[in-house]
Amino acid sequence: MSTVLVFGHKNPDTDTICSALAYAELKKKLGMDAEAIRLGEVNGETQYALDHFRVKAPRLVERVSDEVNSVILVDHNEFQQSAEDIADVRILEVVDHHRIANFQTADALYYRAEPVGCTATILLKLYKEHGVEIAPDMAGLMLSAIISDSLLFKSPTCTDEDIKAAKELAAISGTDIETYGLEMLKAGADLSQKTIPELISLDAKEFAMGDYRIEIAQVNTVDANDVLSRKAEVEAAMAVKMLDKELDLFVFAITNILTNDSEALVVGKKTDLFEQAFNVKLVDGLATLPGVVSRKKQIVPVLTAAATN
Amino acid sequence: MSTVLVFGHKNPDTDTICSALAYAELKKKLGMDAEAIRLGEVNGETQYALDHFRVKAPRLVERVSDEVNSVILVDHNEFQQSAEDIADVRILEVVDHHRIANFQTADALYYRAEPVGCTATILLKLYKEHGVEIAPDMAGLMLSAIISDSLLFKSPTCTDEDIKAAKELAAISGTDIETYGLEMLKAGADLSQKTIPELISLDAKEFAMGDYRIEIAQVNTVDANDVLSRKAEVEAAMAVKMLDKELDLFVFAITNILTNDSEALVVGKKTDLFEQAFNVKLVDGLATLPGVVSRKKQIVPVLTAAATN
Repeated sequence: MSTVLVFGHKNPDTDTICSALAYAELKKKLGMDAEAIRLGEVNGETQYALDHFRVKAPRLVERVSDEVNSVILVDHNEFQQSAEDIADVRILEVVDHHRIANFQTADALYYRAEPVGCTATILLKLYKEHGVEIAPDMAGLMLSAIISDSLLFKSPTCTDEDIKAAKELAAISGTDIETYGLEMLKAGADLSQKTIPELISLDAKEFAMGDYRIEIAQVNTVDANDVLSRKAEVEAAMAVKMLDKELDLFVFAITNILTNDSEALVVGKKTDLFEQAFNVKLVDGLATLPGVVSRKKQIVPVLTAAATN
Repeated sequence: MSTVLVFGHKNPDTDTICSALAYAELKKKLGMDAEAIRLGEVNGETQYALDHFRVKAPRLVERVSDEVNSVILVDHNEFQQSAEDIADVRILEVVDHHRIANFQTADALYYRAEPVGCTATILLKLYKEHGVEIAPDMAGLMLSAIISDSLLFKSPTCTDEDIKAAKELAAISGTDIETYGLEMLKAGADLSQKTIPELISLDAKEFAMGDYRIEIAQVNTVDANDVLSRKAEVEAAMAVKMLDKELDLFVFAITNILTNDSEALVVGKKTDLFEQAFNVKLVDGLATLPGVVSRKKQIVPVLTAAATN
């Protein structure tokens, strides 16, 4: 059997990298010739987790169809967030925790999505369903994914299942959740060394909503001024990317992981859509979204509703 | 909590009806106010199964959004095969064994698809994962679904998991698989009392393939002449439906459950697509497809490949 590549979304975050590694490991233990890969650069938070648990980052692959016929997706399904040539390969499986959109296959497949906070929470179930033991390093990476996606259990996307899974994985990997979790989040929230183009693409996802193409980028920080002190340059870079990708709207959420609020920088010809969706008035392209930390649960559905009304 | 409707596809078959009933039953046992419904008439085969296990057919509902906000889909996901107002309700869950296409949600959901022969095979796993006992009548219906979808294990869609599940369900329901299965299939294969419009819509599904709208209907029979003796009228009815639904192609497969071959009647402006896909020449709009019994595995992927090339 030829190799099957296992990967998460573009602009990989900790769940995407760690779940690709942990699921490829499970598939290998079940007899599949599987390899985790990544579609982009490893961010600071994820690198911290990989270093901590002494796991090498997956190999970077840009075009998957040059290497394989079949792939497994984790942590995403929308084609515009996947490998650029995703339509040219057979998708054998998907394990994900997002809405389903812009996704299709010609054949039946294994698709496992659950409305939980993190892909790794579902992976823990899959390990158990197959009766496969989780190695401590993989458990540590899966725990890191849950801490990342749930902002240490504070995001509204976090479910009881995620918390339970994290505790189990912490025990297997011998990790103190609070201490390790805060260090890991802080490693990701250090934006001081980031260039402007890095800031707006570090964790950016494109969505099709109604007739519009909307990009939503997000960064975690402990001080929004790390970004807002460079506001004019950030907006200029957003405008360039918007033209380049023919977007209708570009939302950049700067999320404070201490206060759990976000500042949203909004650029594009459909800024009215954003204002209407969140019932706010943009001042100089900026609005505060109190209590908003989750793109998936607090931004995407709200904008989708506005875009399809 | 308000009621959640559980249903399969339009032109319901045995898996769609029985899996809706069996999954609604599981959800009720897990505390959800769930009700199985159907989107169309119960066919002869399904009625035989319902009568045998003394279960009432689900209620017919045409527009789901008039009654509920949330639904669960079984045995399908493509919107054109679902309730006409499917886009107006929230899809909480999908349990299915088909390709994914023309499906999208605004929110994360529970989606469980596996490349097995029948939805009921997946439902058996879900019962077990939740530790819920299956009542004998529900086991009988789930067994009926597997027998129907696998043509008594002879379809290429049938997997080892389906056979194993069927044996387990036969034990729970106290059913002799061979005897009961053949009787049930024969009850569905009796086409003598069917009107022409019934014949072509009994088990018809519409697909979007590339830029084309393609309808594929199928009937099981023990003698293809039951249908082909009325060929001219059948073709006329297909042509009317094609205009009515603005289809590009209408394929009607008459499957002999004894020989496991199909006769295909093909109507539409894209008949060349069919000829190219199956490498056959239509004679008077008719072609024999030896060994073809499965729409899902032997017709849809082949036509999709031709339509998207």
